[in-house]
Amino acid sequence: MTVSSFDPKRHGYFGADIGGTLAKIMFYEPENDPTISKVREYVLSSTTYGSTGQRDAQLTVSLPKAKLHFILFETSRMRQAIKLIGSQNMLMGVKNISVTGGGAFKFAELVKEELGCVISKKDEMHCLIHGLNFLLKNVPNEVYYFANPENDEDEEKIVCDVREEMFPYLLVNVGTGVSILKVSNWDEFERVSGSGLGGGTYYGLCRLLTQAKDFSATLEEAVKGDDNACNMTVGDIYGGSYESLGLDANMTASFFGKMVMGDLYKDNVKEADICKSLLYMVTNNVGQIAYLNARLQGLKNIYFAGNFLRTNKIAMKYLSKAIHFWSGGEMKALFLQHEGFFGACGAFLDSEQPNGCESS
Amino acid sequence: MTVSSFDPKRHGYFGADIGGTLAKIMFYEPENDPTISKVREYVLSSTTYGSTGQRDAQLTVSLPKAKLHFILFETSRMRQAIKLIGSQNMLMGVKNISVTGGGAFKFAELVKEELGCVISKKDEMHCLIHGLNFLLKNVPNEVYYFANPENDEDEEKIVCDVREEMFPYLLVNVGTGVSILKVSNWDEFERVSGSGLGGGTYYGLCRLLTQAKDFSATLEEAVKGDDNACNMTVGDIYGGSYESLGLDANMTASFFGKMVMGDLYKDNVKEADICKSLLYMVTNNVGQIAYLNARLQGLKNIYFAGNFLRTNKIAMKYLSKAIHFWSGGEMKALFLQHEGFFGACGAFLDSEQPNGCESS
Repeated sequence: MTVSSFDPKRHGYFGADIGGTLAKIMFYEPENDPTISKVREYVLSSTTYGSTGQRDAQLTVSLPKAKLHFILFETSRMRQAIKLIGSQNMLMGVKNISVTGGGAFKFAELVKEELGCVISKKDEMHCLIHGLNFLLKNVPNEVYYFANPENDEDEEKIVCDVREEMFPYLLVNVGTGVSILKVSNWDEFERVSGSGLGGGTYYGLCRLLTQAKDFSATLEEAVKGDDNACNMTVGDIYGGSYESLGLDANMTASFFGKMVMGDLYKDNVKEADICKSLLYMVTNNVGQIAYLNARLQGLKNIYFAGNFLRTNKIAMKYLSKAIHFWSGGEMKALFLQHEGFFGACGAFLDSEQPNGCESS
Repeated sequence: MTVSSFDPKRHGYFGADIGGTLAKIMFYEPENDPTISKVREYVLSSTTYGSTGQRDAQLTVSLPKAKLHFILFETSRMRQAIKLIGSQNMLMGVKNISVTGGGAFKFAELVKEELGCVISKKDEMHCLIHGLNFLLKNVPNEVYYFANPENDEDEEKIVCDVREEMFPYLLVNVGTGVSILKVSNWDEFERVSGSGLGGGTYYGLCRLLTQAKDFSATLEEAVKGDDNACNMTVGDIYGGSYESLGLDANMTASFFGKMVMGDLYKDNVKEADICKSLLYMVTNNVGQIAYLNARLQGLKNIYFAGNFLRTNKIAMKYLSKAIHFWSGGEMKALFLQHEGFFGACGAFLDSEQPNGCESS
């Protein structure tokens, strides 16, 4: 499915993924079609900030004969955004918008009232897969991996082009929880596994164990911490490597195991150590479960996506290390440039009926 | 390998597994051989108590033409025990004792001084596997599973006899960390996987998050707790089941995910809820990784062993539920009657040379 097969008069111009925390909106701008130029101009010139002081994220993807624009802002500002769109008459004749995420239900009434649009609710997982497949096919540099998975500090990325051989692949979506899907074709996917040990576990335990004021603050702490202040290594148990089993002395034998070794360790542990150890525990575990499922399904390509990875490079580096470790260097953790926007893109693509845009 | 193939004059009468916390000793008593009768009489009549007030555990296994006696006590009392054995001259002419566990190093000097015995140090994993294989082969009711894995309260056990078809199997040893071994034959095994998320993680996080005074106290709390006070379910996210993916509303979507949903949840969570949630998180995860490895290795029988399971029925019930869940009811978590004593038994079996017992 390439971009040339799209008719915006049929598919419409918009897709949205409105989650509990973040709202992601995609708009489609074909060459020589002025329909949404007013939206584009407004959005691209806007300098609004969310309550956390983070600037709205914007991204533009150039395709042959069209552009995709993505914006991301806090869902708490959704009401304000809807009113602004209405007051500026930005949507003009648009009658129908495809939306996925919990907000598809929450904002349906308001959108109808203020904009005169009907929200067409779309299945989250279907939108995610469909949007991802579209970007994998149409964006040459969508996929990348880290050149050196064993070095946490080395952020060098290597881009790879998967357009000629996209399927099958394993998608590991790390949000609050973890879903693991085998994607066999454009619309063919199956949830093969998952885990309750995901982003919610990391941040939930950080909230119980530290004073960090928000998610970003826990990651800032994690970078500074020493995981071996919490974790017990093979060396801590055996005084060195356990050679007959091939276990290196530096390998983590037990996450938080040092907290059992005596009060001295427990009393001296820092919040930064706890954040780092939790992050390492969750990512290592997700990596292991992803690897085992990839082996079971006979898949080589493992993509990691999901909210937990947005602006979380340290988690991506740890996932890279985990896949490298568990696969004995045979597999790579693959990541995606347009992380966060697949749902919105998929909602746009999944409009089965004309969105009813009356062209001006 | 059956018991009749043993010559105590060659193998000796003792094996020990001296860990950081607990010491396990096995002694072998053939019919019509009075060599160790003094030890047996002393041990079986003893009513000593450890520092936690827990009576020393004793177990006797009757085999054709011999008995195996096991005792377990706190390693902190090891010095006292060695001196007692010396003063009573209980070991008589024994010159050599096979020992596994960290204590093989720690107590070597003292044993030589007080008892005139040389400690022969044995590999832990080898002793564990060898001892387990011996008991699987010689004890008809060694293996059991829980009749109803989905009901945490139902403790009905079903015994199964695996003596005719023992190999291959997967052994999941849950101690501070987790080792996963494929055992293909008597002395043929391989560590195929493992996890740093084990008993040390459970108790380490309990120590950071609760005031529970020891490991047993955390388990007592766990029984009383409500894991969904901490954990986010599929229903919490979607308002019900996610039917297109086959996810039930009651399924845990994120361990500790509710701690992210707002301060009200976080402020009202109890220590018992935290203990239960941690126990559920660790056991569910160990169960999932065990299941995936069993599938990858093409194995049906999964035995769970290790210190973490000793006197921890709630963890065994949760592991049963996890294997039932992840395998869609096709596999069972198998447990072992003589949990904790395989290392000592294996140390006894692994004496390659005459233990030098001068029979009286």
